[in-house]
Amino acid sequence: MVGIGPGSKEDMSVRALEAVKKSDTIIGYRLYVDLLRDITSGKEIISSAMRKEVERVELAIREALKGKIVSLISSGDSGVYGMAGLVMEMLHKENICLPLEIIPGIPAANAAAALLGAPLMHDYAVISLSDLLTPWETIEKRVKNAAEADFVMVIYNPKSSQRNWQLKKTVEIILKYKNAATPVGVVKNAKREGESIAITTLGKMDQNSIDMMTIVIIGNASSFTFQNYMVTKRGYNLYSSTNKSEKPKSEA
Amino acid sequence: MVGIGPGSKEDMSVRALEAVKKSDTIIGYRLYVDLLRDITSGKEIISSAMRKEVERVELAIREALKGKIVSLISSGDSGVYGMAGLVMEMLHKENICLPLEIIPGIPAANAAAALLGAPLMHDYAVISLSDLLTPWETIEKRVKNAAEADFVMVIYNPKSSQRNWQLKKTVEIILKYKNAATPVGVVKNAKREGESIAITTLGKMDQNSIDMMTIVIIGNASSFTFQNYMVTKRGYNLYSSTNKSEKPKSEA
Ligand SMILES: C[S@@+](CC[C@H](N)C(=O)[O-])C[C@H]1O[C@@H](n2cnc3c(N)ncnc32)[C@H](O)[C@@H]1O
Ligand SMILES: C[S@@+](CC[C@H](N)C(=O)[O-])C[C@H]1O[C@@H](n2cnc3c(N)ncnc32)[C@H](O)[C@@H]1O
Repeated sequence: MVGIGPGSKEDMSVRALEAVKKSDTIIGYRLYVDLLRDITSGKEIISSAMRKEVERVELAIREALKGKIVSLISSGDSGVYGMAGLVMEMLHKENICLPLEIIPGIPAANAAAALLGAPLMHDYAVISLSDLLTPWETIEKRVKNAAEADFVMVIYNPKSSQRNWQLKKTVEIILKYKNAATPVGVVKNAKREGESIAITTLGKMDQNSIDMMTIVIIGNASSFTFQNYMVTKRGYNLYSSTNKSEKPKSEA
Repeated sequence: MVGIGPGSKEDMSVRALEAVKKSDTIIGYRLYVDLLRDITSGKEIISSAMRKEVERVELAIREALKGKIVSLISSGDSGVYGMAGLVMEMLHKENICLPLEIIPGIPAANAAAALLGAPLMHDYAVISLSDLLTPWETIEKRVKNAAEADFVMVIYNPKSSQRNWQLKKTVEIILKYKNAATPVGVVKNAKREGESIAITTLGKMDQNSIDMMTIVIIGNASSFTFQNYMVTKRGYNLYSSTNKSEKPKSEA
């Protein structure tokens, strides 16, 4: 199970690159498998459309049981709304024992954050708005609780062509707890073709530009913007060089 | 600002490796700079003790203003309780404009999760228990709200020699909302020397083994353990091959 990071090969780990190179078979969603084209020539490539996750996992397990080295590809980290959990659930359910390795990757959240500046510098909550696998009430409760405790919030799967009201509702809930001026970063296709980066506020966010290739990061009460950046304060005491007496304390 | 991932060079991104290689000066906490030794020979290396973050940042900015290419190193992702935010705060405060790049890395949370199995497969909250820079009341409120909404919880900075009661208190709060049987993963020194991985439960967690090189991941109501793994369910309908009629729906 290989997390390839947000999209560009430069953002893959060395371990992930090596795993793909030594595999016999590469399985994944078409877009991600295509990104690896120049290191996968000569290999068996099985790419499929979105929403075929269970079939992909069954196939990967079947090929691995034949003795093949299989890379099952996820974007970002394969353990964050990715394929790793699904494989594990399937192995558990079918009572299968296989030699396996989960190779972490840079999650879209962190890739998007780096493009925005440093919005994740304090406690943050990662929430998917997809209610296909999760009851909306559960999601809503998480949104409310995260907003109320002033977490920085990272929104995955904010919107798709079929799911278009969840983000609006989410922003409404958050606005009960966070100021309308709270900075919001909107990153589409981080580190891959079609990349776009925008910084706005909770009150002014343009929801039309948001789709399922987008991640939305909502600041906390200490988040601020300057130049083209969005930053959340960590709480350091930035004493100036002329005032060295106030020593900062930290564990970063 | 370079996030080098959890520790091994294999878990660095290609972009991070290249950035270090083309830098004139490498600045960071001693442990992390040492990990890069074989790609930094011949460079100016400035490593310092923990808790010298502000000095490191001032130095990095000073060297960069001289025209040097400086890599300021963080473990994991430099935007997660790392150096990136501090640099941005300092540039803002001092009104300095510099060409800069924030290179994301695999956060310790994701590296630890991959070693445990797939515990971060559903919405998760990342919380640091260090109350040196954050009032304890704020942390406690976040712990409560995350536990109540059944987030998977990732605990950074769980304990140090000086800070030893926060984790105990945190577990007490979480136990008001989560079952004592909830799986807990404890990973020390993920992907570097001294790595240790343990899976336990919220009720039975041994807090003595936990220190500041440790990350603690507390499951949600759907988390389970099998073989040596900790897994959180995503909610897929794992229909068996003999029952293809129940189609799963998802957006993973
Ligand atoms: C100041 S934070 C730095 C976090 C880092 N920037 C990241 O993205 O993971 C230090 C804390 O991160 C966690 N940590 C960092 N590296 C780790 C590793 N290899 N294994 C386990 N925990 C780690 C520990 O909880 C430690 O107290
Ligand atoms: C099924 S999740 C996969 C998440 C992935 N495993 C990770 O760790 O980031 C798909 C969602 O991730 C986000 N996403 C993935 N890659 C992205 C990128 N390069 N730029 C922006 N968002 C991305 C979008 O919110 C998208 O709807």
